[in-house]
Amino acid sequence: MQDAQPKDLPHRLYKQYRFQLSATTSSLNIPKLDVDTAVSAANFDLAHPIPRRFTQMIKTHGYAAQSATTPLALFDYEHREPGPKDVHIEIDFCGICHSDIHQARNEWGNAIYPMVPGHEILGTVKQVGAEVTKFKVGDLAAIGCMVDSCRICASCKAGEEQYCDNHATVFTYNSKDKQGNLTFGGYGTNIVADESFVLKVPTNLDPAAVAPLLCAGITTYSPLKHWNAGPGKKIGVVGLGGLGHMALKFSHAFGAHTVMFTTSPGKIEDAKKLGADEVVLTKEPNWHAAHAGTFDFILDCVSADHDINPYLALLKRDAVYCTVGVPETPISVHAFSVVAGRKSVTGSAIGGIKETQEMLDFCGKHNIVSDIEMTSFDKLDEAWTRVIKGDVKYRFVLDLKSLK
Amino acid sequence: MQDAQPKDLPHRLYKQYRFQLSATTSSLNIPKLDVDTAVSAANFDLAHPIPRRFTQMIKTHGYAAQSATTPLALFDYEHREPGPKDVHIEIDFCGICHSDIHQARNEWGNAIYPMVPGHEILGTVKQVGAEVTKFKVGDLAAIGCMVDSCRICASCKAGEEQYCDNHATVFTYNSKDKQGNLTFGGYGTNIVADESFVLKVPTNLDPAAVAPLLCAGITTYSPLKHWNAGPGKKIGVVGLGGLGHMALKFSHAFGAHTVMFTTSPGKIEDAKKLGADEVVLTKEPNWHAAHAGTFDFILDCVSADHDINPYLALLKRDAVYCTVGVPETPISVHAFSVVAGRKSVTGSAIGGIKETQEMLDFCGKHNIVSDIEMTSFDKLDEAWTRVIKGDVKYRFVLDLKSLK
Repeated sequence: MQDAQPKDLPHRLYKQYRFQLSATTSSLNIPKLDVDTAVSAANFDLAHPIPRRFTQMIKTHGYAAQSATTPLALFDYEHREPGPKDVHIEIDFCGICHSDIHQARNEWGNAIYPMVPGHEILGTVKQVGAEVTKFKVGDLAAIGCMVDSCRICASCKAGEEQYCDNHATVFTYNSKDKQGNLTFGGYGTNIVADESFVLKVPTNLDPAAVAPLLCAGITTYSPLKHWNAGPGKKIGVVGLGGLGHMALKFSHAFGAHTVMFTTSPGKIEDAKKLGADEVVLTKEPNWHAAHAGTFDFILDCVSADHDINPYLALLKRDAVYCTVGVPETPISVHAFSVVAGRKSVTGSAIGGIKETQEMLDFCGKHNIVSDIEMTSFDKLDEAWTRVIKGDVKYRFVLDLKSLK
Repeated sequence: MQDAQPKDLPHRLYKQYRFQLSATTSSLNIPKLDVDTAVSAANFDLAHPIPRRFTQMIKTHGYAAQSATTPLALFDYEHREPGPKDVHIEIDFCGICHSDIHQARNEWGNAIYPMVPGHEILGTVKQVGAEVTKFKVGDLAAIGCMVDSCRICASCKAGEEQYCDNHATVFTYNSKDKQGNLTFGGYGTNIVADESFVLKVPTNLDPAAVAPLLCAGITTYSPLKHWNAGPGKKIGVVGLGGLGHMALKFSHAFGAHTVMFTTSPGKIEDAKKLGADEVVLTKEPNWHAAHAGTFDFILDCVSADHDINPYLALLKRDAVYCTVGVPETPISVHAFSVVAGRKSVTGSAIGGIKETQEMLDFCGKHNIVSDIEMTSFDKLDEAWTRVIKGDVKYRFVLDLKSLK
């Protein structure tokens, strides 16, 4: 995706930054500064010879990968001093997502080290900038996979910042912010982000079990909503893991007839408890016959390679097969599988900030959280090993107390 | 697809046939017959010992494949005696479609021999049944890829008979009708079909050049319409052959900004004449950079294997890549290519009868026909060889006079 970034993006973003700063100073009714002076002033306290960034940054203690092959280890680093629109969160819980492992091990080829993973972040507001309106100190707050985006393209304006047309989404870790600083995620004690990318958390839910909603939750909520899961619809969910178990809960809560596809007879009972109306064991002979041409939408939550063509035969005309599992090797699609019935193979990435807030509010109203196993940093290796094996019901959550 | 056919389909269709016959006799206000007697009477003239089917069938002279490996050769056969709703057409022209070759050579694994190919059929009405309302003797008439379907499922009722939910579409050749008789296509002097599957032909167009509209035309018209090609939209067409040249004409006529993707510098001029606003040579280095994230829809008309992932990067968020070329080996889709931007890979098969008539009427209004090379049955081998090479501008049409 980096290749597709327009060559003039950094310049345009710099111009945008200058514009925002200029607008800010004028709205505060203070004498309008020369913008470049203001940019300098943001980094240095001119009255003192020591740059401010060395005195007021947020000291953070976390776990980082230093290379693709070494285990995560303790790492001390700093987050920026909260600006006027920033929220400083002391992190209480962080979910473990399979993508933490993919990225730390550079399996997606985009790793930047040191890397502090974690994008299912739940914590308590510690400081707020002068212009913050959504949060006050002591509030619960959450951060998902993004902390910024270009904010000016059609996708950002449509509330789909994860699909930023300028490819300028700033991810919560393994990414660079608009100033070129590396971002660090939830495997650490603190985080600082613009309130526009911080979510409010319903207070009636178990905060630890809310954390995985920030990735596993929105990743399944968004496509189910986008493709209209609801009463009268027959929805398939492939694979019962971190994503799949949330997909079952949402599809059921939306009122759709929900069918779980799994290879494991041992998961039948769980799937039904989680919201499946039917469970299809895909290792049974002729497992697909009874369901041919009957599904309105199938959400594939499997990250391992597998043949999707038998599932395409289960879709109705014009229906959609969506992957959120993102297998490493390309998906093989027989042309006839989509031509016959004008079916679509698509994918979906998390959800926009507005939709993530909608999802959290929905969860508060319907008492939906993730099924979790609590763990601690001293057991991180074991937890990652079990995530890779799919041996977790259904999401590990790191207790940040184990770092403090 | 045969595998997915519900086991009870033949019985259901038989029941439907009985029901229709029963309804017909009552609407004609004649004494209601026992339905099974009527079914027998339809096949045999009870007053004579010789079954009617041996005396009143439509003798036809054509070219058939007798196996996957032998060249097509002269073949005499019969079409059914026209029933009350049937139209008997004397064929004047038949387009040569690449799928004729695929099927005759059993490259799709579904061949039934003897096979008389041809589903781009244009002719003159010779006889009509008593209940035919749309045609009279002497009219121009056309038949495309289908001659019947279940007519009762949701897709058939929606006018999408090509996607018949009961997999009961009867194709014009290499298929069996509801009575179990093999269907024979346009490489012969006559055809008989129910008027519901026969199209009216605008009289202001060159009839020979209309023939390819029945497959190449509707195959490109339908997806362009379905995915809203029109003013303000940027539409890509991949591959300039029989399908691609029609896609350019339609996309241009719909008012879309139309971009041709081709590997051949020699096709630039033609593409522009056919309706392309821009031509992108996909063998140039970095050919896709200027178009990243800008397309609303791309129609892939290439039947050879090729990498579609670079084209997916050209789509806007939520945009669609549709294959009508149906390459033999599976399409390889990188999950990130669809996840980033929630893009879809889909396919489309011809179009329904109602939409095919709409397409023909649109062509009449906008003076659109296929660019053709006329040929004759004595040059069939050469024509097929050139179709396989893509060496035709842009569709061969057989003149049936060469058989008479």
